[in-house]
Amino acid sequence: MRALQIVSAGVLEVRDVPVPEIGPDEVLVKVAGAGLCHSDVHVLHSPEWPLPNMTLGHETAGHVAKLGNDVTGLAEGEAVLVYLVWACGVCRPCIEGRDNVCINAGGRDAMPPCPGLGPDGGMAEYIKVKARYLEPLGDLDPVTAGPLADAGLTPMHAINGARHRLTPGSTVAVIGVGGLGHMGLQILKATTGARIIAIDSSEQKLEIAREHGADETFLSDSDTAAKVLALTDGYGADAVFDFVGVQPTVDLATKIIAPDGALRFVGLGGGSFTYAADSLTSTIPWGVDVRRSYGGTRSDQRQVIELAKLGKISVETKQYSLEDGIQAFADLEAGIVPGRAILVP
Amino acid sequence: MRALQIVSAGVLEVRDVPVPEIGPDEVLVKVAGAGLCHSDVHVLHSPEWPLPNMTLGHETAGHVAKLGNDVTGLAEGEAVLVYLVWACGVCRPCIEGRDNVCINAGGRDAMPPCPGLGPDGGMAEYIKVKARYLEPLGDLDPVTAGPLADAGLTPMHAINGARHRLTPGSTVAVIGVGGLGHMGLQILKATTGARIIAIDSSEQKLEIAREHGADETFLSDSDTAAKVLALTDGYGADAVFDFVGVQPTVDLATKIIAPDGALRFVGLGGGSFTYAADSLTSTIPWGVDVRRSYGGTRSDQRQVIELAKLGKISVETKQYSLEDGIQAFADLEAGIVPGRAILVP
Amino acid sequence: MRALQIVSAGVLEVRDVPVPEIGPDEVLVKVAGAGLCHSDVHVLHSPEWPLPNMTLGHETAGHVAKLGNDVTGLAEGEAVLVYLVWACGVCRPCIEGRDNVCINAGGRDAMPPCPGLGPDGGMAEYIKVKARYLEPLGDLDPVTAGPLADAGLTPMHAINGARHRLTPGSTVAVIGVGGLGHMGLQILKATTGARIIAIDSSEQKLEIAREHGADETFLSDSDTAAKVLALTDGYGADAVFDFVGVQPTVDLATKIIAPDGALRFVGLGGGSFTYAADSLTSTIPWGVDVRRSYGGTRSDQRQVIELAKLGKISVETKQYSLEDGIQAFADLEAGIVPGRAILVP
Amino acid sequence: MRALQIVSAGVLEVRDVPVPEIGPDEVLVKVAGAGLCHSDVHVLHSPEWPLPNMTLGHETAGHVAKLGNDVTGLAEGEAVLVYLVWACGVCRPCIEGRDNVCINAGGRDAMPPCPGLGPDGGMAEYIKVKARYLEPLGDLDPVTAGPLADAGLTPMHAINGARHRLTPGSTVAVIGVGGLGHMGLQILKATTGARIIAIDSSEQKLEIAREHGADETFLSDSDTAAKVLALTDGYGADAVFDFVGVQPTVDLATKIIAPDGALRFVGLGGGSFTYAADSLTSTIPWGVDVRRSYGGTRSDQRQVIELAKLGKISVETKQYSLEDGIQAFADLEAGIVPGRAILVP
Repeated sequence: MRALQIVSAGVLEVRDVPVPEIGPDEVLVKVAGAGLCHSDVHVLHSPEWPLPNMTLGHETAGHVAKLGNDVTGLAEGEAVLVYLVWACGVCRPCIEGRDNVCINAGGRDAMPPCPGLGPDGGMAEYIKVKARYLEPLGDLDPVTAGPLADAGLTPMHAINGARHRLTPGSTVAVIGVGGLGHMGLQILKATTGARIIAIDSSEQKLEIAREHGADETFLSDSDTAAKVLALTDGYGADAVFDFVGVQPTVDLATKIIAPDGALRFVGLGGGSFTYAADSLTSTIPWGVDVRRSYGGTRSDQRQVIELAKLGKISVETKQYSLEDGIQAFADLEAGIVPGRAILVP
Repeated sequence: MRALQIVSAGVLEVRDVPVPEIGPDEVLVKVAGAGLCHSDVHVLHSPEWPLPNMTLGHETAGHVAKLGNDVTGLAEGEAVLVYLVWACGVCRPCIEGRDNVCINAGGRDAMPPCPGLGPDGGMAEYIKVKARYLEPLGDLDPVTAGPLADAGLTPMHAINGARHRLTPGSTVAVIGVGGLGHMGLQILKATTGARIIAIDSSEQKLEIAREHGADETFLSDSDTAAKVLALTDGYGADAVFDFVGVQPTVDLATKIIAPDGALRFVGLGGGSFTYAADSLTSTIPWGVDVRRSYGGTRSDQRQVIELAKLGKISVETKQYSLEDGIQAFADLEAGIVPGRAILVP
Repeated sequence: MRALQIVSAGVLEVRDVPVPEIGPDEVLVKVAGAGLCHSDVHVLHSPEWPLPNMTLGHETAGHVAKLGNDVTGLAEGEAVLVYLVWACGVCRPCIEGRDNVCINAGGRDAMPPCPGLGPDGGMAEYIKVKARYLEPLGDLDPVTAGPLADAGLTPMHAINGARHRLTPGSTVAVIGVGGLGHMGLQILKATTGARIIAIDSSEQKLEIAREHGADETFLSDSDTAAKVLALTDGYGADAVFDFVGVQPTVDLATKIIAPDGALRFVGLGGGSFTYAADSLTSTIPWGVDVRRSYGGTRSDQRQVIELAKLGKISVETKQYSLEDGIQAFADLEAGIVPGRAILVP
Repeated sequence: MRALQIVSAGVLEVRDVPVPEIGPDEVLVKVAGAGLCHSDVHVLHSPEWPLPNMTLGHETAGHVAKLGNDVTGLAEGEAVLVYLVWACGVCRPCIEGRDNVCINAGGRDAMPPCPGLGPDGGMAEYIKVKARYLEPLGDLDPVTAGPLADAGLTPMHAINGARHRLTPGSTVAVIGVGGLGHMGLQILKATTGARIIAIDSSEQKLEIAREHGADETFLSDSDTAAKVLALTDGYGADAVFDFVGVQPTVDLATKIIAPDGALRFVGLGGGSFTYAADSLTSTIPWGVDVRRSYGGTRSDQRQVIELAKLGKISVETKQYSLEDGIQAFADLEAGIVPGRAILVP
């Protein structure tokens, strides 16, 4: 079969590889669509993350092609999404429903394996997956559903962990209306009564934000923090989601979060700030809980799929053939893909 | 009446001042005991916090001496504790029970007023307090109950905000077994089934920790982080309370917190760390929620009093007469007060 | 001033009464509109609830006419809503934000006083209210805002207590799309991603339900339970709100609630069922939590107002002059008021 | 091997049966001890529950004797507990950590299968169990650990679902200090700061309650409700656990629960009450959430084991040989077993 693989750091190739053989608890999925994510680009160029001859793709959906001998509950031809976090399922966090911080498959210093970031991913004709990492999609189209596995999952997890601050009367700021941000906006709109402020450096993205229900939109500039504070009588936003994570957005986020607020860093832009345990030098108010959010739980994933089924969230996608995958990467790096690029084998 | 006041930065005096006059919603409390806290020392020496001619004391208990005309629900002679956070009671956080982040009396950059840190405090024969900031003490002795208002309240609030990580099977680390820490330990023991690790630089404090129910105790040294990780199979502690906040304890706390854990900085020791929004350079694992905890809510305060009434928590105290207050400050600064110093008018 | 009062059981009169005099912590409100509720009819005819010469009206909004001497934070002319639950504010439930089960003003056998159900209510030119029971309305029109105090508050409280079962992927059934039900529907739509089933005996009400965002609507008949179960693969609805409470709706509710589900009785229709502590004879599945919901908290009230300000919820109203109040009661009893009747002085 | 089986309704026999053969995902456990529970007696005599030739025993612990080919994470000889709820692990409740209300293995009208209540149980030399239903016991003695699977699990689940009402300052009533009740008491003592009232008809049981930390104990008689109300100023207990469920305890429970309280029926004694959706005829106060609690989740189970490892809870047991199993049933029915009877093969 054909697969888009990393040959070496920075080098991609669409090449012939064997169709994977499945074990008794595995399923062979015929890929319908595989989303491209900025973290794919990150992995491609990372010298610390050498994964030669690995098939990329961690946003994969398709149809069940073949079932392992012990697999029950799935049928050939059924549309499925590949869940991102390949956790053990039996450790304490896993049985508490916090499988994204699995002890056995991940641990303190590592996250559990993700397809396309270790095991072979979905940018190929087929992918093999343990049955328990597959989520039925029902009537959703698997060609475009792949991004629900990361661009949908990641914001859902970040939002689910901040719901105590997303009550009616609260204000939430979404920084960055890109792949994750535009999904986060839709999830916030669909599931909370909070007032939503969207912030981006692109007027075009703010237009998208308004379409997805943002109550206020601000172009990011030197006055943005002051504008958010003005809207909240100087108190700040009860929840802030930074879907970018570069230095300017991190700085902004710390300036607009309210006391006791939920501050979530979701984007991997390399920004940072000095966290002072002491109050006198702190840049953020008392009681703020700061968290870097990673992936999401199996339950978060299912919630994303259910919202999509109800038509409450959707991903904007641009399709490329698998053979044009290298072009898709180039377009993503050039910043000219509207929404999410999808490789279709 | 006699009162211990700040004359100027660094200068204390026990002097004669008028007995305060009360308004219709206020109560005059005859002070039975007023606790000394490290933040009193901090305020005393702080050039940024010039409060000349202010009576110190934010851990005050006594008996109702006189009721304002509109006050109901309290009786003369009743033992009461002065609640620390003088919030508005009507803003959104207040009606949500989060009065310690009151918008009107505090705001984004300021905490609500505390007696002895703005308004006159309790190191005097009398203190005036709005009726709604008084908590009945029942049979508890007001001579020694004062520290419940801060040394009790502050750990209770920090712990109440981390209960989702304090389930049986979890591990909690308490760094620093001083005034706040020894109360925190007792609260954890009384209200959770978590395994408790106590860490301190003094073997004597660890002995106190063991008496208060710590399951494991470690002297803080260069191996402490490794020992905590070893006890948790490398995963870290699900909750970490740093009741000190100096650089070495902040460093330790970040090294032992588990993924998705609750990291709470309660002590004001001036430590800090670089919070990386990005994963690759981060010093703390995914999902950790980091929070500086401030004071506590009215509800937290009442829980502290109820635990004390049931005999589940108690403060070690050393009593000084109000006239010896300056000596008490000297002893506190010299680090030779076992437990909490109390001024008795 | 003119006021609509109960003269004796079943007898109403619009009559002249003195304008109330206010105390130092009270506010005189010039009524802009007062909603009629089925519980007014209930009280009017109840022999156990003799309240002769009491002004009815517990859904009141208006403008501040005069402030008591000690009142701060409100301005003359400001639009305000009268909060329904006149709780003490200092007992344990009150400081936990559960003022609707206040110990001191209510207790085990009584609810806290409500204006128009004990103290004089808002069907008059003026009402006096303690300042802390008033909620600023901002730009909302007080002529039609009154119903937010009960028809808005009561469903909000019931829903807030069931949010753990209102996640995306869950199914919620709303039984009865009347005064409370049509508000409940809008709140569910605005604040959750649950799939919403609306059930009513009137096709016209189901049409309203569809306009307010119900995903499925069923006329109540002998097949309704089977249809709800069919929609949920036989498992039932994760949350069921019975806004009617008559025997047929109670029976239906118990037949469609899922295991571990949230079953809430909000309507006062007199229905009941046998609750078997044992499993073998029980009519409801394991783990269901059943609750009769009463009024709501101050925080619930503010959430309702905030949703109304964002335009996410609104009440359908029909206005009557205060002088036509007796006619309005007659129309309500005859079931010919679309939405909520409002008396305008 | 030898096994204690139901021959027909009411008839037991210890007989020879084949050692079970295990599949690739199963484990053969050599039983060390199997607890007897009142529900075993119930099943034995139930005409609606005909399970001829089934081995009884749902409280089983032992050592791993043989591993199926696909099993990982367990070692031969390891001590394990058999988890009670054999859920599917993939349905929505399961991935939310609510496996005790599994859709696929149970459903609306049935609970998931339990060993000894459908599949063969643990009153035998060996039991076969899917690997994912085994919980490692560490250093706990498997001879006496079996009851943790039901007498430990069931109260833990009921308590975990009521923690919002078990804060310091609250009062909790435990009705019945038998097998489940004495475990419930220990769990409450170990994990909450609530004031605990224990109620039983036996003075001897109340003595056990005091040893396990009950703050107050009452013999159940016609004054018990009045005494509990007197202790709580007429408001009632914030949480009530009825571990018996007969008519007198159900009546008592409804009389002492506070408004907004958590009322949990855990015992299967056949009692009931009329639940009025309406307030005027209701026997329980506003806001009470009533729930019949069933078994528990995998996470609850692990919490029970962890508390036992820390020495915070323990089961009183009396051991019988497996050959004397019929005598053990007779003793249980005669009410002369102190604590929990254990069959030791």
